[in-house]
Amino acid sequence: MPIPLTFEIHHKSKENAARTGTVTTPRGSFKTPAFMPVGTRATVKGLTPQQVRSTGSEIILNNAYHLALRPGDEQIAKLGGVHKFMRWNRPILTDSGGYQAWSMADINKLDEDGVTFKSIIDGSMIRITPERSIEIQNNLGADIIMAFDDCPSSVAPQTQNLARRRHALTSRDGVLTEDAHEKRLLESLDRTARWLERCASTHAKPDEQALFGIVQGGTNLDLRARSVEQVCSVALPGYAIGGVAVGESPDAISNVVKYTAKLLPEEKPRYLMGVGYERDLLAAVTSGVDMFDCVLPTRNGRNAHAFTRKGQLHLRNARFKDDEAVLEEGCTCTTCASGFSRAYLRHLYASKEMLSGILVSMHNIHHFQSLMVDIRAAIRDDSWSLLIQRWPVLQEGQKLTQTHTAQEPV
Amino acid sequence: MPIPLTFEIHHKSKENAARTGTVTTPRGSFKTPAFMPVGTRATVKGLTPQQVRSTGSEIILNNAYHLALRPGDEQIAKLGGVHKFMRWNRPILTDSGGYQAWSMADINKLDEDGVTFKSIIDGSMIRITPERSIEIQNNLGADIIMAFDDCPSSVAPQTQNLARRRHALTSRDGVLTEDAHEKRLLESLDRTARWLERCASTHAKPDEQALFGIVQGGTNLDLRARSVEQVCSVALPGYAIGGVAVGESPDAISNVVKYTAKLLPEEKPRYLMGVGYERDLLAAVTSGVDMFDCVLPTRNGRNAHAFTRKGQLHLRNARFKDDEAVLEEGCTCTTCASGFSRAYLRHLYASKEMLSGILVSMHNIHHFQSLMVDIRAAIRDDSWSLLIQRWPVLQEGQKLTQTHTAQEPV
Repeated sequence: MPIPLTFEIHHKSKENAARTGTVTTPRGSFKTPAFMPVGTRATVKGLTPQQVRSTGSEIILNNAYHLALRPGDEQIAKLGGVHKFMRWNRPILTDSGGYQAWSMADINKLDEDGVTFKSIIDGSMIRITPERSIEIQNNLGADIIMAFDDCPSSVAPQTQNLARRRHALTSRDGVLTEDAHEKRLLESLDRTARWLERCASTHAKPDEQALFGIVQGGTNLDLRARSVEQVCSVALPGYAIGGVAVGESPDAISNVVKYTAKLLPEEKPRYLMGVGYERDLLAAVTSGVDMFDCVLPTRNGRNAHAFTRKGQLHLRNARFKDDEAVLEEGCTCTTCASGFSRAYLRHLYASKEMLSGILVSMHNIHHFQSLMVDIRAAIRDDSWSLLIQRWPVLQEGQKLTQTHTAQEPV
Repeated sequence: MPIPLTFEIHHKSKENAARTGTVTTPRGSFKTPAFMPVGTRATVKGLTPQQVRSTGSEIILNNAYHLALRPGDEQIAKLGGVHKFMRWNRPILTDSGGYQAWSMADINKLDEDGVTFKSIIDGSMIRITPERSIEIQNNLGADIIMAFDDCPSSVAPQTQNLARRRHALTSRDGVLTEDAHEKRLLESLDRTARWLERCASTHAKPDEQALFGIVQGGTNLDLRARSVEQVCSVALPGYAIGGVAVGESPDAISNVVKYTAKLLPEEKPRYLMGVGYERDLLAAVTSGVDMFDCVLPTRNGRNAHAFTRKGQLHLRNARFKDDEAVLEEGCTCTTCASGFSRAYLRHLYASKEMLSGILVSMHNIHHFQSLMVDIRAAIRDDSWSLLIQRWPVLQEGQKLTQTHTAQEPV
């Protein structure tokens, strides 16, 4: 049986758990640590595949949930798969739809077999089971596919986001206590473990698509250890850390990732889902994480926020009115290399012109890819202080806000 | 004094008044007959200058009115002019703002000196006079600038569009009679002639920017002749036919253009403003017109209409759900050459994804540029029947609908 994914480790840091490597899939390789831009509906918002490629991206993420609703996974299969559909001939990863079913749907109901929720498109009831999620992802044909997991909240009920609180309320007629929350997490972990086995056994293309398992467990390290044991008992080409960056503090994220990553098999790629800001990425890399995805560069690009090595620029600010400088001096992204000024970008945002989000999304993705290039160099040479010197945003004291999950808004 | 524009005629058709040529400006040349995509607010909606260039476009149009309101023409001057501002280093033409002041503003008032209207941005009262229009265009710094004219309706009151009717009502307390309409057109022509002299004498950069005069006169050929005489009495580098495609039938457009173009000086470029569909362009070319602009390719692109040689495709149509073909077989535009299918484009429109309008705008502009390439070849070789054979949409019997004016909607 052909192997759908190989992972070669090139360098290991002497100072921490970071490593560089190459993941090879049937559609080509990508260097790790890797950052994947998010292309929810088979398009990285506003960018052609060529423009995405120009940012240095080697792999992108699509959302199984959104594509199953529209145009439909069978439809995409009929059209030759998602690579051909969107004209991106490099690696693609699809998430399982579990997180989306929970966080986006108005009504959702969990049972032992799966999740039932209302379609955001036509209000019809949709059911996703582990089997259906893998069927969707088999139909889409991404190179890496994700297990369908139960997505419990990783934070205590009082700090949960709205969707989580709503679920707690609908399932228990009241806010959960801490103990009840732990109990539910435990049930959820065991369910995720049972679902993973169903995902693995239903996977129709194990020689073409690499299935990754997802470790859950919230911020409770004992539960994380239990989840690692359960998930890694199924031999898979890679493993992910899920349920992170859904409302915790940066320190909590960092602790969970540091603790969990080292428990995962060293020879397999480790993927931290939906994270995050620059410092989150660095912390995770030094804990041994190899893959990341996040909507920040594109979402913030559309919202007039440009990333720079010194922090974000808010381009609607009047101070950019006369600013002839490019977003970041010396930046080699298409936007900066073409010479578009902050003043022009501010004008485009003020005029609600599409080109604003396009140009700044390109710059922002390139920003994250440049960070990964420099992180890989730091790992190779153990030149961490040089990295932090070149990226002031990585220094302590820089403000960090909440990260976001792996989907673009409607 | 350096000459801001030269026009070299290469070939003249033996069958009709068409000619090929090259217009040279301080920022480079463009081949004629030329089609100019519209970049209202210093951006062709959704496209980078590189993408615009990939369509074969050699010159674009910006709107003085919109840029004067935001970010302000003095602001753009301070930032080095509109070419530098938008990173388009090839020829640019700006219109004078006359048409926009009339057709877009909620309140507009005409007097001998100019037009007063309400800003669409903040509701403040704006006044544009011939002097102010030229000042705006001098500040923007386009290679070709347009005279500020009074824009009367070219059609009889009962078929006027809303803005025209509103003006008729506010100025006369009732719908104008045909006679009164003619009288108003005559007054308007004389005013346009007086304004042109003021434009020419206030023009601060006659050695850098080529000022074009605009012939008006509606569908009345006598008035057109009078306007030509008035406008061409001022020696300018080029002349335009305005007040066309604001509600007339295709035949009426064709008649006016045919009559008017031949009255204009043969050695100067002739520009037909805001026209139009493929057959309108061909009719105008064979009447001796050299330059065109129209929002159709970009506006229709955003509205899910793709131009092909056989007519438009309405991409929201369910019949494209399974259509793996590109928009037009053999098309060399970036969208078709990249292999994006009609099924994918339909999905992008259904999902309200920006990439839909971007990809189809690129195709549509390329469609019009390809038509111009083939028209230039037809002129050179007098191979008109071959042209019509290759472009079925040019054949009689193809449906033509109303064309649009030279601005992109907000």
